[in-house]
Amino acid sequence: MKIDLNCDMGESFGAYRLGDDAAILPFITSANVACGFHAGDALVMRATVGLCAAAGVRVGAHPSTPDLQGFGRREMSLTPEEAEAFVLYQVGALAAFTRAAGVALTHVKPHGALYNQAARDPALAEAVARGVARFSRDLVLVGLAGSALVAAAAAAGLRPASEGFPDRAYDPDGSLRSRRLPGAVLHDPAQIAANAVRLATEGIATPHGQVAVDTLCLHGDNPAAVSAAQAVRKALAQANIEVVGLGT
Amino acid sequence: MKIDLNCDMGESFGAYRLGDDAAILPFITSANVACGFHAGDALVMRATVGLCAAAGVRVGAHPSTPDLQGFGRREMSLTPEEAEAFVLYQVGALAAFTRAAGVALTHVKPHGALYNQAARDPALAEAVARGVARFSRDLVLVGLAGSALVAAAAAAGLRPASEGFPDRAYDPDGSLRSRRLPGAVLHDPAQIAANAVRLATEGIATPHGQVAVDTLCLHGDNPAAVSAAQAVRKALAQANIEVVGLGT
Amino acid sequence: MKIDLNCDMGESFGAYRLGDDAAILPFITSANVACGFHAGDALVMRATVGLCAAAGVRVGAHPSTPDLQGFGRREMSLTPEEAEAFVLYQVGALAAFTRAAGVALTHVKPHGALYNQAARDPALAEAVARGVARFSRDLVLVGLAGSALVAAAAAAGLRPASEGFPDRAYDPDGSLRSRRLPGAVLHDPAQIAANAVRLATEGIATPHGQVAVDTLCLHGDNPAAVSAAQAVRKALAQANIEVVGLGT
Amino acid sequence: MKIDLNCDMGESFGAYRLGDDAAILPFITSANVACGFHAGDALVMRATVGLCAAAGVRVGAHPSTPDLQGFGRREMSLTPEEAEAFVLYQVGALAAFTRAAGVALTHVKPHGALYNQAARDPALAEAVARGVARFSRDLVLVGLAGSALVAAAAAAGLRPASEGFPDRAYDPDGSLRSRRLPGAVLHDPAQIAANAVRLATEGIATPHGQVAVDTLCLHGDNPAAVSAAQAVRKALAQANIEVVGLGT
Repeated sequence: MKIDLNCDMGESFGAYRLGDDAAILPFITSANVACGFHAGDALVMRATVGLCAAAGVRVGAHPSTPDLQGFGRREMSLTPEEAEAFVLYQVGALAAFTRAAGVALTHVKPHGALYNQAARDPALAEAVARGVARFSRDLVLVGLAGSALVAAAAAAGLRPASEGFPDRAYDPDGSLRSRRLPGAVLHDPAQIAANAVRLATEGIATPHGQVAVDTLCLHGDNPAAVSAAQAVRKALAQANIEVVGLGT
Repeated sequence: MKIDLNCDMGESFGAYRLGDDAAILPFITSANVACGFHAGDALVMRATVGLCAAAGVRVGAHPSTPDLQGFGRREMSLTPEEAEAFVLYQVGALAAFTRAAGVALTHVKPHGALYNQAARDPALAEAVARGVARFSRDLVLVGLAGSALVAAAAAAGLRPASEGFPDRAYDPDGSLRSRRLPGAVLHDPAQIAANAVRLATEGIATPHGQVAVDTLCLHGDNPAAVSAAQAVRKALAQANIEVVGLGT
Repeated sequence: MKIDLNCDMGESFGAYRLGDDAAILPFITSANVACGFHAGDALVMRATVGLCAAAGVRVGAHPSTPDLQGFGRREMSLTPEEAEAFVLYQVGALAAFTRAAGVALTHVKPHGALYNQAARDPALAEAVARGVARFSRDLVLVGLAGSALVAAAAAAGLRPASEGFPDRAYDPDGSLRSRRLPGAVLHDPAQIAANAVRLATEGIATPHGQVAVDTLCLHGDNPAAVSAAQAVRKALAQANIEVVGLGT
Repeated sequence: MKIDLNCDMGESFGAYRLGDDAAILPFITSANVACGFHAGDALVMRATVGLCAAAGVRVGAHPSTPDLQGFGRREMSLTPEEAEAFVLYQVGALAAFTRAAGVALTHVKPHGALYNQAARDPALAEAVARGVARFSRDLVLVGLAGSALVAAAAAAGLRPASEGFPDRAYDPDGSLRSRRLPGAVLHDPAQIAANAVRLATEGIATPHGQVAVDTLCLHGDNPAAVSAAQAVRKALAQANIEVVGLGT
């Protein structure tokens, strides 16, 4: 039994620092690197790819809607053509830095609102998958487990990866509980670690049965993140679940 | 005897149209496509690469300083690290669209202020060349004939291309006469065509002798552009100068 | 009987030109000037206010969502706090130019997606009205006739103005027919002129009765705009409808 | 004897936090609030003006070149028309928030590269002063003591304020020592406090004699800032130098 651990990275911008990428890197196998639309800039991208290369962590693109001021969290009405072109642009920009660093670009995980909208909207999901596939069908496309994005990835000939969130509560239909509701975000490392083991072994309960999970999302943007990551790694090891990179 | 004819393209943005790319494409062999920093966006880039691919015109990147409001014409103090990373980002973004369209990315020509600053400043020129070389040493890097950028391209192991401007007056030292001075920009198709032949056959006169020219810059952003392009093609044909793509 | 004629203006940006503001100015009484979020920049705003001042046309702010690439046409999920602050920022920025030009800022008309979302969503409409009212309760707030924005303007103590579109088809419920449907946008000057007279005299038919119209939107961004504007002015004059500025 | 203490504020943006404005506010009399070009956004501006109003600290605009990614630190070639319009836009945007909060806008201090370029370049200094004066001649314009900006402020009919930097070393000509040189930035609170007293009482030594100082710049963007501010206030009190707002 095995699982990937991913984390969003490179979300600093210009003079602004966000997250402690170096602290969380030892615990993960896949990094989703911001590409300049919601966060990140060319200098941050280069530095982040360098950090990942040195740590042996797989590098993926973390494309977003064009929304720096809103950090990519605002849902917006993109046409499929726009979504496809925006994804392709950002994947290409990041691929220049992986190429310069001599490492592979392994995956793509949409950010924030784009991730959420593509989870629900098949037309948008297909557009995102098309943008990725036009770059390379060897890429893994990460989406919410059970979502339209995972289905679109498979249909586009990409390798889909189903993501689970050990620090989030799920609703009975298998969707993430809204962050606006109490109890939606968990902070207790022990609880997060237990969820990680359950997601890796059982997947997510939905009305249509269990949905398997390929990768777990850890967070690196708060002080408690390292404690949670340590707890998750320890619990997975005790459960004999191997932590390996996406698609390996 | 042969020469390349290049033109800046894809400089529309969002709802804004600039230039008549389709009208000028039949006359050129290399297109420099804006990458989103001074002009262009993901949708414009995709459409422009598509136009070039259909016309059989070579596609290059036209990276800029980050200056959409100023159209990349403002000189700004970039560190070499910034210039290198900005170039790499933009080359990668455009390369995603050439890859999706199944055509090669053949060259890079910096835009506006970045072109001018890199012509004079060896450290900046080296940074631009480094950014291009980190993407691929197979790319041609286009710079002002006789400039620091051409020297840096050669030193970085890239194929340099020296550019001449048939619609611009040159100063005795071989530099372009400032646009602020009278007579700096030529509008007469016959004069532009005569300059094109002279630049292709003799190069540019400088205090250190003649500097050869590999590519001529045509413009596509004004109504008289097509007349000038037609006159240039006719004059080159009459002088038995073959018009072929950069690096071929 | 009287009516205001308004037009969106100052939607150029940097090197990009959009619309022919000077050509349409003689026909209108109120200009809605872009404030830099979907179009316009500080130089364009200054020039546009100058044009309006010279023409004796009333100057209003035309604030948008932050969406330059999408020209403010993408619906996006703004919180009321964001909408209020974005409106206040843009109104203030434009007010600096009216102040410098020695003319009054008379009104505010949200642009594109913000206009449409605020027409339907009372919470967003209240936020927009609050942003305007915090700047000045003397401002007229323009919204779609019969919409939530007009109601919110009145509730906020602002002077509301109900807008009609003589070049658009209306659905039986009084809303604008979607631009995606055939016949949604009219091009015949005679038809547009007849609509202008009917909107000015009868208002818009809705299930709850007729809704009066205070201002008609003309367009300045296409070649046929001047012909339509001429036809509208002539028809209004023949119908003895006085064309006067908003709030006068 | 009296002096103003100013600090740059509101330099957060979107999801990014920068500086600890609340911690430094008790020590200062004038806040220079970022206006969205190098930092700050409409929400940050509103919150920052609210903090200043509650603390009774004078609010000024801190306009910049359009350079979010470079935090306004890159020198760039602006025309005087651009500089004037950019300043006017930003002053107006901030003035909307002071107006909404019921407090006065008291001053303008250019940021970063714009401050430095306007200190040396009389044409740019005049353009900045013109932008401020077109908004209101009642505003204080803050510039480097002895600089072209202070001269331009006086010539434009504004109230100039000469600024000194207690945590910076000065060169013998009265200019700030470049940050790239060792010893340019001081960190010892005692030394900074001693400099503050000397600048307030003696001004800055230049080849043309002493130049008086009206306001001292404190910093709020590092952990040691509060210690330095405390030391400055204590030393000024012991020297019987009254700390009062600009222009009072």
